[in-house]
Amino acid sequence: MKLVEQKTDQAIEILNELNIDLWLIYVRKTSEIHDPSLYFLLEETWLTWQTVFLISRNGRKIVICGRYDVPNVEHLGIYDTIIGYDESIKHDLLKVLKELNPNSIAINFAEDNVAADGLTHGMWLRLNKMLENTPYKEKLISSDNFLAALRGRKTPTEVERIKKAVEISERGHKRLADSVKLGMNEQDLEKILLDFAEENNVTVSYPPLINIGAETTIGHGKGSANIVLKPGDLINIDFGVFYEGYASDIQRLNYVLKENENLPSKEIQEAFKTVIKAISTGAEKLKPGVKGWEVDFAARKIITDAGYEEFKHALGHQIGLNVHDGGCLLGPKWERYGQSVMYEVEEGQVFTLELHVFVENHGFCSIEEDVIVTKDGCEFLSKRQLELPLLKL
Amino acid sequence: MKLVEQKTDQAIEILNELNIDLWLIYVRKTSEIHDPSLYFLLEETWLTWQTVFLISRNGRKIVICGRYDVPNVEHLGIYDTIIGYDESIKHDLLKVLKELNPNSIAINFAEDNVAADGLTHGMWLRLNKMLENTPYKEKLISSDNFLAALRGRKTPTEVERIKKAVEISERGHKRLADSVKLGMNEQDLEKILLDFAEENNVTVSYPPLINIGAETTIGHGKGSANIVLKPGDLINIDFGVFYEGYASDIQRLNYVLKENENLPSKEIQEAFKTVIKAISTGAEKLKPGVKGWEVDFAARKIITDAGYEEFKHALGHQIGLNVHDGGCLLGPKWERYGQSVMYEVEEGQVFTLELHVFVENHGFCSIEEDVIVTKDGCEFLSKRQLELPLLKL
Repeated sequence: MKLVEQKTDQAIEILNELNIDLWLIYVRKTSEIHDPSLYFLLEETWLTWQTVFLISRNGRKIVICGRYDVPNVEHLGIYDTIIGYDESIKHDLLKVLKELNPNSIAINFAEDNVAADGLTHGMWLRLNKMLENTPYKEKLISSDNFLAALRGRKTPTEVERIKKAVEISERGHKRLADSVKLGMNEQDLEKILLDFAEENNVTVSYPPLINIGAETTIGHGKGSANIVLKPGDLINIDFGVFYEGYASDIQRLNYVLKENENLPSKEIQEAFKTVIKAISTGAEKLKPGVKGWEVDFAARKIITDAGYEEFKHALGHQIGLNVHDGGCLLGPKWERYGQSVMYEVEEGQVFTLELHVFVENHGFCSIEEDVIVTKDGCEFLSKRQLELPLLKL
Repeated sequence: MKLVEQKTDQAIEILNELNIDLWLIYVRKTSEIHDPSLYFLLEETWLTWQTVFLISRNGRKIVICGRYDVPNVEHLGIYDTIIGYDESIKHDLLKVLKELNPNSIAINFAEDNVAADGLTHGMWLRLNKMLENTPYKEKLISSDNFLAALRGRKTPTEVERIKKAVEISERGHKRLADSVKLGMNEQDLEKILLDFAEENNVTVSYPPLINIGAETTIGHGKGSANIVLKPGDLINIDFGVFYEGYASDIQRLNYVLKENENLPSKEIQEAFKTVIKAISTGAEKLKPGVKGWEVDFAARKIITDAGYEEFKHALGHQIGLNVHDGGCLLGPKWERYGQSVMYEVEEGQVFTLELHVFVENHGFCSIEEDVIVTKDGCEFLSKRQLELPLLKL
């Protein structure tokens, strides 16, 4: 079964579960600004005129689109009704709504869930104008919970794609560890990974993040040509890819032994153990029903109790269509995360577990794994890093 | 001068011209949903956390972004102030607004201009909450006119990029006319163009549209493997590319002579002349100050006066960052086009001029040119098609 078919069928199930009559997606010129949920409705197809998708709890799948877009939508073979219009979408929309007569209409806006916030404010105004003096204007609700479920609960096809993305990333990490040499700079290491991605015909799910030693800048920025690998450095690599639209996101850590050194310093060993323990603690906590912030709190406490400065980001985000997939977040109760950390974890969601501590003079000790939530716990999709490879270069 | 520098400088000029104190762009997770105006502020860089850009009429260029995104923004070398935050953007935003004390704040929402409608409804709600109980909430206005000007008025760098994209498309059309053979189907022709784009290291600005003969389906859909080239067919090709982020959009027409035929039928000759005349009429009408619908009306009248069915789309859209660039549209006063056809044309805007008539038994007679508005008229960027090539295959 095609992914679009799986996800639209799943949408109907979730509408019934959440007691929502209709999901309405209103978009225009999707090459310019693209509602993230369109992937489940169209995969890669683009639409040029204003379009409305309607998925109803009783199983209807309807599209109202510009007449020139009709062949594109027909091609998908998913929608039971495809209406092409010329001058205005309003007439057909009102006619279909009258026929469906929904009591609740979920539309894509959400303050704290980027994946459910595809409706622009201008389109929200347009929609409200079209529904003026109809009973439907008062039926509009946010699709936040609905889309968190639809995007979070991975179908078998989605899990297979993510697993494949994880496997490719792991091979990329291996390639890097095998290729790295003293004197290489951060951009050299980045190039090894970009070349690997090209060879394997995949795109990176974000620019690879390379952090060498203690002078590096941590963050989402490009690596530096001035930061050069030397003995005693920790090498932290954050590298993920897209496989058929689905992302992986994995960090691996290596250490370059100094001359006459057989083990890293106590500080590094201690930091590494603490990071591993924090990830284990997060994974033990992660299961259906727990709130996002509770998982973050358990892992974060291991770090702060050990006396390290706490990491300034969430322990884990979902992955899927995007490397940061929105919905339930395993993060602290900071204003910027809003409600996302208050959601309950659900079976079928895929999360990262990632955190770091800084080791004076050596760099960032940081690991990231990808896990899927099971019926009563979670399972690692990545082969967990439990040892610190000691490179003699 | 970098494009981001040109466009942010131009933004400051336009703010002064329109008497707007501040342009505020509020975005988050820009790899997931991307405000179209970000290209002028960042080019290709992505941001992971919520970010606010502030461009003021007195020349300030400020960014407030997540701490891990700071190096990415610094790297651009454009912003005079870059503030990194950890837990919430609100505190720094209010502090900066207090310092700037604007009387009007343009934000990116617009009902009829996709390029100015990058703020999602959820982000609009967030922004309003942050500004609750401050004087700034009442100062918010739509950036519609501002962005129509910023996006429409091409800088020299932008014009150069579009010219180059036009030149590459024209070579693609030439390649196709030289390669086409009887018995090829629409997908074969598509492949010629996709291979050409790959060879030339550019991406298409939309999937090439191939229409062969009278049985084809016109629209934005993929060509058919069942529609095969035969003598007497019109071949209409719509092919554009992106060059350094900027689009071209050009249609060319060829005719395949029948055996023993030296000229196409009267019907085809008449249709071709009418299409050329309509484009000439549109081009003559196109100059600063004229309203979009007036240009469309003049060209459309040529078609309907000649007794043809009118084309069900606008005569011309702007091109630039996108192949449909928003803002002023040369289109009819149909509801779906809203206010966009009421705008006045401005110098420096780049438009397509495109229209078709259908010729019974032969197919679509359709041409599309790209033009730039000058001080008192317009100039063709494409080498205009004035003859119908007659292919003997």
